[in-house]
Amino acid sequence: MRILITGGAGFLGSHLCETLIGQGHDILCMDNLITGRTENIASLMGHDRFSFNKYDVCNYLHVDGPLDAVMHFASPASPQDYLELPIATLKVGALGTHKALGLAMAKGARFLLASTSEVYGDPLVNPQPESYWGNVNPISPRGVYDEAKRFGEAITMAYHRYHGLDTRIVRIFNTYGPKMRTKDGRVISNFIVQALRKEPLTVYGDGSQTRSFCYVDDLVRGIVSLLMAPNENPSALEDKAPNQQDQPSSDLNIHSPFNIGNPREVTVLEIANMVLAHTGTTNPIKHCPLPVDDPKVRHPNIQRAKTWLKWEPHITLEEGLTKTIKYFQEIL
Amino acid sequence: MRILITGGAGFLGSHLCETLIGQGHDILCMDNLITGRTENIASLMGHDRFSFNKYDVCNYLHVDGPLDAVMHFASPASPQDYLELPIATLKVGALGTHKALGLAMAKGARFLLASTSEVYGDPLVNPQPESYWGNVNPISPRGVYDEAKRFGEAITMAYHRYHGLDTRIVRIFNTYGPKMRTKDGRVISNFIVQALRKEPLTVYGDGSQTRSFCYVDDLVRGIVSLLMAPNENPSALEDKAPNQQDQPSSDLNIHSPFNIGNPREVTVLEIANMVLAHTGTTNPIKHCPLPVDDPKVRHPNIQRAKTWLKWEPHITLEEGLTKTIKYFQEIL
Repeated sequence: MRILITGGAGFLGSHLCETLIGQGHDILCMDNLITGRTENIASLMGHDRFSFNKYDVCNYLHVDGPLDAVMHFASPASPQDYLELPIATLKVGALGTHKALGLAMAKGARFLLASTSEVYGDPLVNPQPESYWGNVNPISPRGVYDEAKRFGEAITMAYHRYHGLDTRIVRIFNTYGPKMRTKDGRVISNFIVQALRKEPLTVYGDGSQTRSFCYVDDLVRGIVSLLMAPNENPSALEDKAPNQQDQPSSDLNIHSPFNIGNPREVTVLEIANMVLAHTGTTNPIKHCPLPVDDPKVRHPNIQRAKTWLKWEPHITLEEGLTKTIKYFQEIL
Repeated sequence: MRILITGGAGFLGSHLCETLIGQGHDILCMDNLITGRTENIASLMGHDRFSFNKYDVCNYLHVDGPLDAVMHFASPASPQDYLELPIATLKVGALGTHKALGLAMAKGARFLLASTSEVYGDPLVNPQPESYWGNVNPISPRGVYDEAKRFGEAITMAYHRYHGLDTRIVRIFNTYGPKMRTKDGRVISNFIVQALRKEPLTVYGDGSQTRSFCYVDDLVRGIVSLLMAPNENPSALEDKAPNQQDQPSSDLNIHSPFNIGNPREVTVLEIANMVLAHTGTTNPIKHCPLPVDDPKVRHPNIQRAKTWLKWEPHITLEEGLTKTIKYFQEIL
């Protein structure tokens, strides 16, 4: 397949490029490099099935030749980034998604949107099934990311319903692993970098808020499964779906969103202590004020991915942390 | 003041044009006429302080000369329209709002966004204060309007926070009155047209869902009050706000959203019976299937508008219905 990946030089995008190149596909990587980094794709440069174009997907979008799939991963994605780049975040979520959908239409390509667990906001239901509508403050500072992604889902579904475009939506929960930036601002990279630098680990609030951390290899495998899944409605599976009461039957198709994440829920304080233990450090923990509208819980219900994609994560938090700590030890 | 009104040939936009022309302002009306109608502004054509430009606000936006305010009212706004025009609705909510904000920035103009009670979705809190985050299904067919407006609010707040633009957001609840289209698809115009045509009144579901109907003159007065309200924080008022527990203090400024609507909550069945009584007809009521994700309740908490704008509606539902029925009798 010939696949365009927007945001292909970002943390997740670059892992997708690598995996899909490894599977024999042709990859066109597009990134404006505002949060993506060429280091992430350095090992692919010069590969005859890989090309890179530094480009802002909010502009007029043209690609020579056929395309089989468009994967829209371009967006600032860590709270630190999108609070600093609110308008760029809103633009790429709305205008960028619109342009990428238009390109997929023009090429007759399948479209996959990188959405996020942030569409659930500060959820009142835990774990979150895909049928949960979310609890998002549209006017808060962090609303820029959440609403941009919700808009992205709405316009993706509109292209599917109105234009018959073959679309997929993945709601990505917290992910970690090699290629995260040292200054990314996300909790696991923060903790590891702080631990390795012998600095205090900064925990926001009392650390009782929970997250579910998925190792990047598991996540990428889930996303590729969703991209490659056939369009046919596996009606045999539908009958067996154990969580059917949460999933209105109209939602039970390949085009409605899939949670991809690790269902092991840990508190932020637990993860801080795990990082200390795995790095063999005894740095203190420093508590900082909780940001506005920080979600209190996050825990994916992954029944849909299990049933439809036969996917579930395999890498334990302990293994994943060990690999990620090794990566940061090498680059620091 | 010199004011641009996008969607100025629509139901609300054209009432705004009339009122603001009547108050001595210069009005530039812009509309692509996909749901707006030149009949709505016919009486203003040729007025030396009024000009009309048939234009899609999603395109490059340029206006000669200075502007004091940009009021962004362009959007399909009845469920019938936005279900038929999902992508146009998403575009004008995201790209159109972005262009209109950019123009306001370039001109140093105040910006007012027409948002909607639809940002509350199918609310789990009744009545709805502005601090309620809403219950919206991002991927449902009617999500296109709700998410477009939520995105519009998010980008408006981002321009305010990031660029210091003087912005206002009005969340408009159900409104009715002269200039609604006979085929608008909204409940009061539907019922009146059906009653006058001796057709059965179509009630969706059992009619127990509630709405709060504001007569258009009251609504326009509220919006103009918000547009003209000074930027200063009336801290004296803030202390007196009776509903403060619902309104985090950071939200208590003129830039955060204002509900404008009539707090009298009636069921759809009640309004059907009132229309029958006021038109002196005895047509039957025909029940139809409830659309997907139709909100069960809608009732504005208008304390913020009362406190900050000294605004509340004056026209009773009985008076408003009489005026609206008279309008439809004349045009049918």
